[in-house]
Amino acid sequence: MIDFNIEAKSSETRARAGNLITAHGSIETPVFMPVGTAGTVKAVTPEELHKCRAQIILSNTYHLYLRPGMEVIRQFSGLHSFMNWDGPILTDSGGFQIFSLAKISKTTQQGFDFQSHIDGSRHLITPEDAVEIQTTLGADIIMCLDSCIPYPADEKTAIDALKLTTRWAGRCKTKWGQLSDQKNALFGIVQGGMFKHLRAQSAEELINLNFPGYALGGLSVGEPKELMFEMADHCLPLLPDEKPKYVMGVGTPEDLVELVSLGADMFDCVMPTRNARNGQLFTAHGNININNAGFKYDTDPVDPGCGCYTCLKYSRAYLHHLYRCRELLAYRLNTIHNLYYYLQLMRAMRKAIFADKFNDFKKSFYRKRSMN
Amino acid sequence: MIDFNIEAKSSETRARAGNLITAHGSIETPVFMPVGTAGTVKAVTPEELHKCRAQIILSNTYHLYLRPGMEVIRQFSGLHSFMNWDGPILTDSGGFQIFSLAKISKTTQQGFDFQSHIDGSRHLITPEDAVEIQTTLGADIIMCLDSCIPYPADEKTAIDALKLTTRWAGRCKTKWGQLSDQKNALFGIVQGGMFKHLRAQSAEELINLNFPGYALGGLSVGEPKELMFEMADHCLPLLPDEKPKYVMGVGTPEDLVELVSLGADMFDCVMPTRNARNGQLFTAHGNININNAGFKYDTDPVDPGCGCYTCLKYSRAYLHHLYRCRELLAYRLNTIHNLYYYLQLMRAMRKAIFADKFNDFKKSFYRKRSMN
Repeated sequence: MIDFNIEAKSSETRARAGNLITAHGSIETPVFMPVGTAGTVKAVTPEELHKCRAQIILSNTYHLYLRPGMEVIRQFSGLHSFMNWDGPILTDSGGFQIFSLAKISKTTQQGFDFQSHIDGSRHLITPEDAVEIQTTLGADIIMCLDSCIPYPADEKTAIDALKLTTRWAGRCKTKWGQLSDQKNALFGIVQGGMFKHLRAQSAEELINLNFPGYALGGLSVGEPKELMFEMADHCLPLLPDEKPKYVMGVGTPEDLVELVSLGADMFDCVMPTRNARNGQLFTAHGNININNAGFKYDTDPVDPGCGCYTCLKYSRAYLHHLYRCRELLAYRLNTIHNLYYYLQLMRAMRKAIFADKFNDFKKSFYRKRSMN
Repeated sequence: MIDFNIEAKSSETRARAGNLITAHGSIETPVFMPVGTAGTVKAVTPEELHKCRAQIILSNTYHLYLRPGMEVIRQFSGLHSFMNWDGPILTDSGGFQIFSLAKISKTTQQGFDFQSHIDGSRHLITPEDAVEIQTTLGADIIMCLDSCIPYPADEKTAIDALKLTTRWAGRCKTKWGQLSDQKNALFGIVQGGMFKHLRAQSAEELINLNFPGYALGGLSVGEPKELMFEMADHCLPLLPDEKPKYVMGVGTPEDLVELVSLGADMFDCVMPTRNARNGQLFTAHGNININNAGFKYDTDPVDPGCGCYTCLKYSRAYLHHLYRCRELLAYRLNTIHNLYYYLQLMRAMRKAIFADKFNDFKKSFYRKRSMN
């Protein structure tokens, strides 16, 4: 189980700073979770994650279930030992990946009948399976199996997915309650498309099931940014303040700042890691693409104010060279920088919440970010 | 300049252990030099190289000359600062890469007229250029521009290449003598194809030029293994014992053991790093391919007796999983293991030389290596 305590609240916004205690250590919120899809945060080691001050990572159930498979994970008594990460882990339910990667043969009341994107093999995942698989993975926080919809989607589609999500949430909760060893915590996922009344209905139905934490799913799926914020602004206050609130799959540094000010506590996104591999680096003064010819002779670090390994040891010119040569080290050094940037941004927000100066922080953040 | 001292000699073989002092630190020989082609030993950082106990790395002049180019290197006052490696560096002359990668338009008395394999741009490299470029790179040990020949090659071809190599060696020596700041040492490269009398002639002509060290070039270019050993056995005793003897571009662990016993002091090869990226891992008990299905559930490290980061922290099953997923971390962890293996093999040989038990060492080495 987890324990969540609010330590400070912003008086100007809905931002809050808290402490989330899990079986593998405590987490300071608001928190960003680097994504380790296949049992590795791409290009970095657990030691490097610690040095980037990662507190918790996210891993993808769908990917791990298919490869290496649960037999292998059982050999290691879970993902922690398999991948050599001793901190907290959150796993998603697999629902979103089945929706976005696999070929779904059938979605029934029973669960998802799908084909692997790797080898085409056929699998059925029920809500009970999702809980069992995540428990086998040994994740500290596990997610209910939910039904995702594309954007845009009509109301009928959103209602059907919402109903299924609620029903599956109930089954997940029951299964989780039956598992003797509840070291983990199960979060419910609010769906409802871009319909406020459906979002409210989803939140209410999940709250009735009383989960240790709640997530907003189905955001950042292609809708306009304004709409995403509108939905988050609408939903986050509907969730109980004493529980952690997690906005799934978001986002840019600006998104995180906005969503924290709206009351979100937890985030995950492939953006810092994926963009690193594409040469895009985040800095306090805006984003840069290290591939740009302008960096060829540049002896400065990516961000002179940054304390990450990459900035302490290497120049833009060297990173530019590595990237142009498609050297493996390029992806690692870029990833380390981007993760460090995201994680220090979260710490800076937390500090601003404690000082109750979140609006000042926001102003300064936007001013600097638009300087480049 | 360098200083070389023999510290111990094997009474049973021609193996010797020495100390090679360079501007960036001293090196215990026999030594293996990891290859950092483009200003990075692929997939690892300088800190990881130190942890693998690398003492000196090799970098490729041809690659660095083309990319990032000498203007960039000058900005950083050399390769050490550009790539953040503070230990000794040896650079090759570029001759072998021009021979093997570039499209040579013309080889004249003047030098190589060639086209870049990257963008087709045309370049002329003279022996004087090779010395100047390597000096700009700031390498501790630099190599004479030599003329390589394919295997097999007839005597006429070998004679022509030998003559050119000797003449160019003289020009390199002169240029090196003219450069005011001789912090580096220039090595001559023995050529002569697979003809013993030509090899002897090449060695003699180079010795007359009195270099701080000597290398055997043009080996491991496709000839049968026996012939390679025969040539090394013939050539190594012809070189002055008080100077370091370097066999270029070799080889397997077995090759290194054989060549050390024949009196070689220095080696470089892409084998540990390249094979790592192809999933082949070296161990005391033979080589394994981590891609093999047999490793899927294997909770043991690659080599239970190995002290490298990879073996201390990860299982074969995890490495197998990472490799199957083509995860970036796979290449790094495999590389760390293979480099550690090669470098500890060199230390073990050195120890055996000091104990004057090289033949015992060899027997035990071969017995274990053939166990898998």
